Formats: sequence, structure tokens, C-alpha cells
Amino acid sequence: MRRIDRLVVCGVGLIGGSFAMALREAGAVGEIVGVGRSQASLDAALARGVIDRACLTWADALPGADFVLLATPVGQMDRVMAAMAPHLAPGTVVTDAGSTKRDVIEAAYRHLDANLATVVPSHPIAGAETSGVGAAFATLYRDRKVVVTPLPENDPDAIARVREAWAACGAVLREMAPQEHDRVFAAVSHLPHLLAFGLVHDLAQRANAEQLFDYAASGFRDFTRIAGSHPEMWRDICIANRQALLGELDAYLAELALLRAYLMTGDGTSLEAIFDDARKARNAWADKKNEG
Amino acid sequence: MRRIDRLVVCGVGLIGGSFAMALREAGAVGEIVGVGRSQASLDAALARGVIDRACLTWADALPGADFVLLATPVGQMDRVMAAMAPHLAPGTVVTDAGSTKRDVIEAAYRHLDANLATVVPSHPIAGAETSGVGAAFATLYRDRKVVVTPLPENDPDAIARVREAWAACGAVLREMAPQEHDRVFAAVSHLPHLLAFGLVHDLAQRANAEQLFDYAASGFRDFTRIAGSHPEMWRDICIANRQALLGELDAYLAELALLRAYLMTGDGTSLEAIFDDARKARNAWADKKNEG
Repeated sequence: MRRIDRLVVCGVGLIGGSFAMALREAGAVGEIVGVGRSQASLDAALARGVIDRACLTWADALPGADFVLLATPVGQMDRVMAAMAPHLAPGTVVTDAGSTKRDVIEAAYRHLDANLATVVPSHPIAGAETSGVGAAFATLYRDRKVVVTPLPENDPDAIARVREAWAACGAVLREMAPQEHDRVFAAVSHLPHLLAFGLVHDLAQRANAEQLFDYAASGFRDFTRIAGSHPEMWRDICIANRQALLGELDAYLAELALLRAYLMTGDGTSLEAIFDDARKARNAWADKKNEG
Repeated sequence: MRRIDRLVVCGVGLIGGSFAMALREAGAVGEIVGVGRSQASLDAALARGVIDRACLTWADALPGADFVLLATPVGQMDRVMAAMAPHLAPGTVVTDAGSTKRDVIEAAYRHLDANLATVVPSHPIAGAETSGVGAAFATLYRDRKVVVTPLPENDPDAIARVREAWAACGAVLREMAPQEHDRVFAAVSHLPHLLAFGLVHDLAQRANAEQLFDYAASGFRDFTRIAGSHPEMWRDICIANRQALLGELDAYLAELALLRAYLMTGDGTSLEAIFDDARKARNAWADKKNEG
């Protein structure tokens, strides 16, 4: 890949920090500048050596930058892009790590209209229940998918630079249309998070919550692991992608209505058929993942 | 514990096989007899050395038995108890490993009326997505809870023998009323299984199922792990406990209706409050489990 002389990372947490560490390890980057709303977070990133320099403003951070990663929760993208716009030089490549793409792109059209040739949205399919720069590690993206959702306005060379940067982190590149991206991830990521948060919240409110949690075992542990995820980040994702998420939630409610009808009528045969289909699909998926 | 001279295990799969192996390893048992509906399963158990002798009928298996574990799917308990009843000697202790208790107890009242002093229902909170005697292992129950739900008719000595047997497997003993047991496990086990089966089934039916599964990642993997569970076993559990499970499903549907309303109105503050409560409860639970 072409070397990045000055990388700016906005939001130096798990996602932004791991990107910086991976590029540093790959020898693909010169100076790494962190921008953020919290001096404490930036200090932690400096102390870990993840960034070389910390800035609280875009005016300080952007001059001389050739590559910018926006790694804040998606709910902040509008504000972030508005703030960076006056300082963004033509030719600086900008990407983001947002879990939703349509809303990020709308913010880019609102605020970065003059730079659309070099604003190339992306989404790394990696993460953890942990957060913050302390949880970052250089191999987070290794063998993980990164979905790039290019804009019609994008310069092919800018797309190539974004792909190269993620590839240098060890990621496997994919491209999708933004709408398709948001529909797919509503189904396989955003809905499961909503459902897990909902189940834990439902049980935690009960008068016998302590007893319930006392008897919860490994099935519950795995099912609810994603309910340990970052509330602000997931609030933003759910709100940003609420149109697609509502569609998925309604499809799921229809599925639950079917299961409920089978329970009501004691129709074990139909229940077993659904369980059996699900098990086959789930095992086929897991087998394929293990091969890959 | 008092030694079991002749143990009979009905259904020598993961649960029954692991019980036999654990007692053998503890030196707590003489002969182990397997009873089952399938000669192939019994042959596999014989070949692994999990049982010493295989019987296809209760008439062959029960003479001289001092302890019986019923480890079939709960949907078979009625048939199994009806079949064993004519051959069951007074004094033979009977327990089961059923995931539901009210239905197992009803079957016992129907068929084992003459032996209620020594029929002590229990439920080991252990299992796996794997099944069959090939998946059995001696330490499955170590540090796991076993809930005993004694009957008013039980002889205290029979309760003690059932507790001793599970304790010899390394389990931690608890007691609950059967109704309470079924309500608690509807919430923390049966509902999550139903929800996971439902999500995978919903997605697997889509025209773009292959694409969806292609982008599913670690959050999806953990959330749906229990959708790889045994369909017949879970059909039986859902049907047996459908009254409590419907109550839990309806409570969860109310939670989803609330989340749906917040999505519709774009109420990020309320969503975040729910996510935050859920994360706190989930993390507190996980921390406590790790300590324990």
C-alpha cells in the first residue's frame, strides 16, 4: 500500500485505536494524530503509544493529514463532519467505521459536499463488548470483513486507498450498496442486539430478578453476551438504522406470533419443524465459518 | 454417600451417560444398566464402557436395581413411567433429569402412584448443544446446580439418596417447588431457546439468507448458539412448560412493543436507558458468576 504520512483518528477507542495500532504494526503510517472530545481518552491513547499527538480541535489536527478515520459512535458523525468540514483539504481521504451507512452518508452530503470525491464510507465487522483505547489491539481486524460502500462521487483512487488501509490491517474487503448494507446488518446484528438488551431488561425488572439470574446458565450467558455492549453506541445504531431495524423487528414479531400460536395449540410437530430448520441452518453456518 | 449397587439409566445420551460416568469415576456405583428404545444407542454406550449391560425392556432392567435415572426427553416420561411401573420394586429410588418438573410429576402421579415415597424429581442445570452418549463426560455436572423438587409424598431418605448421587457427580444441590422451578426456567432458559430458534428460522427462510449468514459475525454466533440445540428435546420442553413459557413470551412481547415504540418515535434517550440497565444487570451477573 501507499504509505500514510499523517493519519488522523477521530475517536481513539477500541475501533479507532486498533486501526492505528494495526497500521503502525504494518509499517504503513508515519505520524498518528488523535482527535477527540475527551482529554482523558486522548491522554490514555498517548500513554499507550497508540497516537503520537493529541488534538482537541480539527484546526489543529487536519493540516497535513492524508488519511482520516472517523471512529465515533454514529450519532456523532453529523456533528463531527460539520466541525471538520472547514479544515478539510482537497485530497485528504476520509473514511469511517460506522455500523450504519445511510445516515453517515447523509451527514457527508450535508457537510462534506466539497470533498465527496475522497469521502469513502466503510464498516469493519469487528468489535467486542469491551470499549475504550485500553481494549484496542493490533489484530482486531485480521481476517475480519470490512464492507466499503462507495459513493457515486468517489474518486476510484480514494476507494483504493481506503481498501488498502483496511487490507493492511489484515481485513477482507467487500463492497455493498449502503441501503443493502443497512438492511443486512439490521437483520444479523442490530436486531439480535435489541433482542438481547430487551430480554435482560425484562428480567432485571422483575421482583424475583435475583433468583432468575441465579439460575441462568451457559445458554443465557451466550444469548445475552451482546447485552453487555456499549449503550450509547447501540442507541445511535438503532436510531440511525431504525427504518430497516423496524422492518426486521416486525418480521421477527411475526415469527414469534407463529411460535406463540403453536404453543397455544400445543402443536409440537410444527414447533419441532421450526427448531429443526433452525438447527440445520445454524449448524451449516457454523461449519462454513469454521472452514473459512 | 451410600453405594449404588445397581444403577439403571433410561436414555443413555449426554445427560444419562455423563451421570453414569461421574458415579463410576466417584467409585459410587456397582453395575450400570442402560435401558433405551434404540439398540444402536445402547451398543454405543456399551462400546464406550459407560454401561455394563443393555436392556430393551424394564422387565430385564429393573430387578435388583436400587437407583434409576430417567434421562429421556420430557415428552417420553409419561410412556416411560407407564412402562416401568409394573416392574418397579418398593424401595427403588427413582429420579429424572427433565428440564421441566410439573409435567414429569403429573406423569409420576398417573403411573407411579404406588412408589411416590421414592420418586424424587430433579433437574441438572447442565447440557450442551451436542447430544448422544459420544458427547457424555464425567465432569459435566461438576460445580453445576441440580434442582431437586421433592414431592410431599417423598421419604426423606429417598430425597437424601438423590441429593447424594448428584453431589457425588460434583453438583451443587438446590431445592425448589415444581411450579417455581418451571416459572424460573421458562424465563432464563426456555424463552431464550425459543427466541434463538425463531431468529434463525426467520432469517433462514429469506430469499437472501445466504447473504445474511455471510455477514453474520460473533454477536450472532453467540446469540444463536442455543439454536443448535436438540429439536425434539426442546419441542418437549416447550410443550410441557407451555403455560409458563407463554407467560414469559407475552412479557417479552410487551418489552419488544416498548422498544418498538421508542424506535418509531426516535426516542434515543429511552432506548439508551434500557440498554444501560441491561448492560449493568448483565455485567453484574457475569461478574458474580465468575467469582462463584
